Amino acid sequence: MLFYDCSTAPNPRRARMFIAEKGLTIETRDVSIAKAEQLRPEFLAVNPRATIPVLVTDEGEVLTENLGIAAYLEARFPNPPLMGVTPVEKGLIATWTAIAEHQGGLPIAEALRNGNPHMKDRAVTGVVNHAQIPELAERGRTRARAFFDMLEDRLQQSPFVATDTFTLADITTYVFVDFARVIKQRIPEGHTATQAWFDGIKARPSGTA
Amino acid sequence: MLFYDCSTAPNPRRARMFIAEKGLTIETRDVSIAKAEQLRPEFLAVNPRATIPVLVTDEGEVLTENLGIAAYLEARFPNPPLMGVTPVEKGLIATWTAIAEHQGGLPIAEALRNGNPHMKDRAVTGVVNHAQIPELAERGRTRARAFFDMLEDRLQQSPFVATDTFTLADITTYVFVDFARVIKQRIPEGHTATQAWFDGIKARPSGTA
Repeated sequence: MLFYDCSTAPNPRRARMFIAEKGLTIETRDVSIAKAEQLRPEFLAVNPRATIPVLVTDEGEVLTENLGIAAYLEARFPNPPLMGVTPVEKGLIATWTAIAEHQGGLPIAEALRNGNPHMKDRAVTGVVNHAQIPELAERGRTRARAFFDMLEDRLQQSPFVATDTFTLADITTYVFVDFARVIKQRIPEGHTATQAWFDGIKARPSGTA
Repeated sequence: MLFYDCSTAPNPRRARMFIAEKGLTIETRDVSIAKAEQLRPEFLAVNPRATIPVLVTDEGEVLTENLGIAAYLEARFPNPPLMGVTPVEKGLIATWTAIAEHQGGLPIAEALRNGNPHMKDRAVTGVVNHAQIPELAERGRTRARAFFDMLEDRLQQSPFVATDTFTLADITTYVFVDFARVIKQRIPEGHTATQAWFDGIKARPSGTA
């Protein structure tokens, strides 16, 4: 296998954490987004959509999305399970992973990409440039704050995001919560359940992957 | 099980098609978005995030995302498989499902929700109102056109979106391609591979679900 990573971006980090939790060692190449290496011909030959992470499987297939990489690795290396064993576990983990993507990752990315002067014309990933939309950056900040509130409600009721054990939903949520620092948002004061959950994950070997 | 559906919206249709392809009959309640029924207290008690579809499982768990509903049903009712059997199939199907969501469903929804006068202040799903952003509607239309081009490239190489058989990735893509009519986009002239694939799916019993 060959893993295309980027040390500074949240989506590759999700895959990196998943690989670490599985206890796998995979040959890795770093693609620097800061140097726009994802737009170079040699990387576009791997993934024409110019996104990272990418996993090239032993079978030679190219998986260009976190959920695809996770589904492949979970099936090939079932232990420890990170996507559930029973139907209900699988359903809850996929549900909360999607909630973290749509309500956490997306608004944070919108706020960053539409608001940061260094990302001018890079409001969307991929090869085509799109101008920043300042109103979308503001909406992203508002929605990210709502995400922190929703998450605290959830973690007041559940020790982990999806089930009573650590799963892909925790990886996804943890990475986005941590990444919110780029839009100057952190776990709000008084969100004690979120803070305790976050500190617990940060202490795992994969937490600093 | 109890399935909360909405006959007019694309995301519930994805779950409806998945259920039909599995050959399941599940007790269903229609929630009318036109009448804002998803914002009524009785539905918010089921899903406080006010999105549809929702599947309440026999175990009493509430799955509020398409990928969660699909993961649960695939595990409980493995045949016919719609999310792959081998690791590579599972990885490719999850990858292409994510691509259809991010590059098809999201831009089309952005164009509709930020551009249609009937959706004023409903630019984002959920209980909180967000003002429309006209630039985002325009960007969504541009990106939806790019999605059609990307899809034609893919279907020139592959009989189905993810693998050589019909899967969840086809359901997801088909529903969004069809839904693009709401922003006045259709499969472009000359996209012969996409048209043939679309017509084949439309002819399935689930194609009009």
